[in-house]
Amino acid sequence: MEEMPTFETREEVMFFDTDCGGVVHNIAYLRMIETCRTKLAAKLGMSLREMAQTQVYPVVVRTEIDYRRPAVLGDELVIVGKLHSVERARFWCAFEMRRVADGTLLITCKQQLALVQMPQGRPMRLPEDWKQKYAPASPQ
Amino acid sequence: MEEMPTFETREEVMFFDTDCGGVVHNIAYLRMIETCRTKLAAKLGMSLREMAQTQVYPVVVRTEIDYRRPAVLGDELVIVGKLHSVERARFWCAFEMRRVADGTLLITCKQQLALVQMPQGRPMRLPEDWKQKYAPASPQ
Amino acid sequence: MEEMPTFETREEVMFFDTDCGGVVHNIAYLRMIETCRTKLAAKLGMSLREMAQTQVYPVVVRTEIDYRRPAVLGDELVIVGKLHSVERARFWCAFEMRRVADGTLLITCKQQLALVQMPQGRPMRLPEDWKQKYAPASPQ
Amino acid sequence: MEEMPTFETREEVMFFDTDCGGVVHNIAYLRMIETCRTKLAAKLGMSLREMAQTQVYPVVVRTEIDYRRPAVLGDELVIVGKLHSVERARFWCAFEMRRVADGTLLITCKQQLALVQMPQGRPMRLPEDWKQKYAPASPQ
Repeated sequence: MEEMPTFETREEVMFFDTDCGGVVHNIAYLRMIETCRTKLAAKLGMSLREMAQTQVYPVVVRTEIDYRRPAVLGDELVIVGKLHSVERARFWCAFEMRRVADGTLLITCKQQLALVQMPQGRPMRLPEDWKQKYAPASPQ
Repeated sequence: MEEMPTFETREEVMFFDTDCGGVVHNIAYLRMIETCRTKLAAKLGMSLREMAQTQVYPVVVRTEIDYRRPAVLGDELVIVGKLHSVERARFWCAFEMRRVADGTLLITCKQQLALVQMPQGRPMRLPEDWKQKYAPASPQ
Repeated sequence: MEEMPTFETREEVMFFDTDCGGVVHNIAYLRMIETCRTKLAAKLGMSLREMAQTQVYPVVVRTEIDYRRPAVLGDELVIVGKLHSVERARFWCAFEMRRVADGTLLITCKQQLALVQMPQGRPMRLPEDWKQKYAPASPQ
Repeated sequence: MEEMPTFETREEVMFFDTDCGGVVHNIAYLRMIETCRTKLAAKLGMSLREMAQTQVYPVVVRTEIDYRRPAVLGDELVIVGKLHSVERARFWCAFEMRRVADGTLLITCKQQLALVQMPQGRPMRLPEDWKQKYAPASPQ
């Protein structure tokens, strides 16, 4: 069994990420996580260009996100995403977001995804070799 | 004990809510839920104008969202939010989103919130009478 | 010649509309304007459901927006959009956004749109009767 | 007189940038332009961290944007921003966005900014040496 694939992205907090509470808005973190997840998916063989042609997309079916500490304007953030576990037709990714300056853990997030043929929304099986290569989903 | 407060909002799916998969983007639903939550909070005594003055905000500390069926451009959606349960310093809201035309359940979501004094981020106790008025959080 | 069609929408400023400067973020106003424009387009015979089927969309080709006064959290805003002028294959809409409480003019905006067959992006002629019904574009 | 400062940023088009027309949504380009503008401003001596402390911000007072060609999912884009001209209390930036793969010009944009002390919104003079260093605004 191979080690679970990971991907790391960086973001600098912009004005459009913040709200009048003075910190990053809760929805903005999910945009940053999507960028990390999309690049992780490309590493797993699902590139954006290919998706645009085949119309087969990994679709988020569940998100769990914990907001532990807030980020502020100008913070540099690092997001680490990894493939967490694999089921027959779905898979989980897990994410951690930290402030680069002091390593503080700001966000943890898990997302469950399904492969779907759009626009009909028909669920597709995951690639045959994922079961061999990657760890099965543990009972939650 | 009073019945748990609820609030209902309506949205029509706009272009900016959708993505090139042809359906509403997963993050857009959370913006719609925030509108419902904010108006529910106002009903609970936390108005936006008051928040802007006192800088005491209800802050999302956890979101759980399940994407059951997709919405498409032009769909009219109804979001029902309710106060779900109350702890000493935190409370849960629960949301359901349906397509008005056929009543299909599209989204279920729970969010845990804390009252926080910004910008220091100091947690505040919930109003004293909430414990009496509203149901306690059940063990999850 | 008919009077130019208008449409009015209302918005309440939410957290996700603001940034850490304490006012509404410049991009958020454009989302509000898009909602008004989309409903104005429906009134002109271009409904969202029809667009989703025909894949003929009015596409923004130019935006000019002036930020005159800022809105803040909780402000109720009214956006008035109107068809401003019509060319052969393009048309202009004009928008004014005001704070309901005191009528202050916050935003003025003009957008030029083209009718486009997606996804090829082929420009389409405007409906034949628009020239008769609506004022021609004046030289700018 | 010095050459006008420039800054270049890169973006990869994500799902959240697109809409159901199959191309990048008109508002998403402005988020990409803001990232470029913010880094250009940092180069001009206005860093995000400093702004967060002094609450003196460069505020967009006018945007003009032309949508020339659409970008699609997975496109890599390059945004070049430059200081365009300087007035006493305001300055203009100009932006060009191109597809990296073929150099196609997708977007041109100009934004006028004012330095403002928040939250009062009081306009501030630009730094004294900008007039000497940078070209004056030409009549439009």
